[in-house]
Amino acid sequence: MMRIDIISAVPDLLQSPLNTSIVKRAQDKGKCEIQIHNLRDFTHDKHKQIDDKPFGGGPGMLLKPEPFFECIEKLKSERDYDYIIFTSPKGKIFNQSYANKLSLGKNIIIIAGHYKGIDDRVRERFATDEISIGNFVLSGGELPALIIADAVIRLLPGVLNDSVSALNDSLMNDNSVEAPYYTRPAEYRGMKVPDILLSGHDKKIAEWKDEKSLELTKKWKQINTTE
Amino acid sequence: MMRIDIISAVPDLLQSPLNTSIVKRAQDKGKCEIQIHNLRDFTHDKHKQIDDKPFGGGPGMLLKPEPFFECIEKLKSERDYDYIIFTSPKGKIFNQSYANKLSLGKNIIIIAGHYKGIDDRVRERFATDEISIGNFVLSGGELPALIIADAVIRLLPGVLNDSVSALNDSLMNDNSVEAPYYTRPAEYRGMKVPDILLSGHDKKIAEWKDEKSLELTKKWKQINTTE
Repeated sequence: MMRIDIISAVPDLLQSPLNTSIVKRAQDKGKCEIQIHNLRDFTHDKHKQIDDKPFGGGPGMLLKPEPFFECIEKLKSERDYDYIIFTSPKGKIFNQSYANKLSLGKNIIIIAGHYKGIDDRVRERFATDEISIGNFVLSGGELPALIIADAVIRLLPGVLNDSVSALNDSLMNDNSVEAPYYTRPAEYRGMKVPDILLSGHDKKIAEWKDEKSLELTKKWKQINTTE
Repeated sequence: MMRIDIISAVPDLLQSPLNTSIVKRAQDKGKCEIQIHNLRDFTHDKHKQIDDKPFGGGPGMLLKPEPFFECIEKLKSERDYDYIIFTSPKGKIFNQSYANKLSLGKNIIIIAGHYKGIDDRVRERFATDEISIGNFVLSGGELPALIIADAVIRLLPGVLNDSVSALNDSLMNDNSVEAPYYTRPAEYRGMKVPDILLSGHDKKIAEWKDEKSLELTKKWKQINTTE
């Protein structure tokens, strides 16, 4: 069973996505265990202070090193971790092959930064991986941590009922995009499902899907390489 | 005030991230309003069925068109929308300039797909934008919807206390990465904060930060262009 530990200064934010849908079912089925750690539980002052001003000036507050060190050292004393992941805009951009790699691990720590950032000694001492979800600025690392957890957990054997569905998903393989999908009614608000999909000709349908997939993949690559 | 409507088949998943931290404070301050719409509320059968099998075969279930049409038509009858966003692996990959653009809108609908996908007529009829968060497969569009909402809301005037902090964030401008940050203690577990940051020489500190930023930006570009 995979174990994922998420360390956060805003643990409440993580609750509903980890307790709903596929990620919840994966835990209920015993395919993974997710533990959330509140950074404030690793402080020793009465104000439970987790942040402080940056050396050398600059706006905003940083997360202090000590609570992270204490939390991670405690976890590492209890079991070996394959990956200790920093969510950070400075990291390698997450993709499906990265998710595949992580899904082969047994124990994973994900550190969700918040505020301006984390004292860099935490990264230097512990991080095996520094992962960015993309080129945009977020309030914290919690949503990226949830994205990584979701992408990894759905790959664990037995989590999805329909493993073929996982394999066929858009971008699962070699960045190809799937053909459009339609369901009933065959006509709705004047919009018709393509005739070929109603024809019953399996071979022609497969050809149509391949053709549409190529067309959309080409379009997708154009859209995403113009910058 | 910006209004964001999120349509989802798993509305419970969205709760905690929208009711915590900066996104909650933005709502409390009256800077934005977020409305979640449960797709099942727009069904008319007793089972509240929102999915059906795809025409032309294939594994998995699709989200039916009717509940989306009814929900979106109702919203559009109440106000004009600047953006109706599909979260989809087929879309344009989200980035900071996209977030900047969206933050200038007033009313935004975000459609969070789940299951295998959504009947394509919904996209064809309504979508102004089709956005992908990145090249990885997730269980649904809820986390991408939350990412888009977070990235946009933090840009709204008055949401962040320290607007300088937002402007200085890593990757906020021209894909440059910030220098590492440190806070007290100056020495911890044998790890020292770089002397320069403790020196009090503002000019030298600024030079060091620029140098480190250039170095890390170069490293970041190398890491992220090898594939």
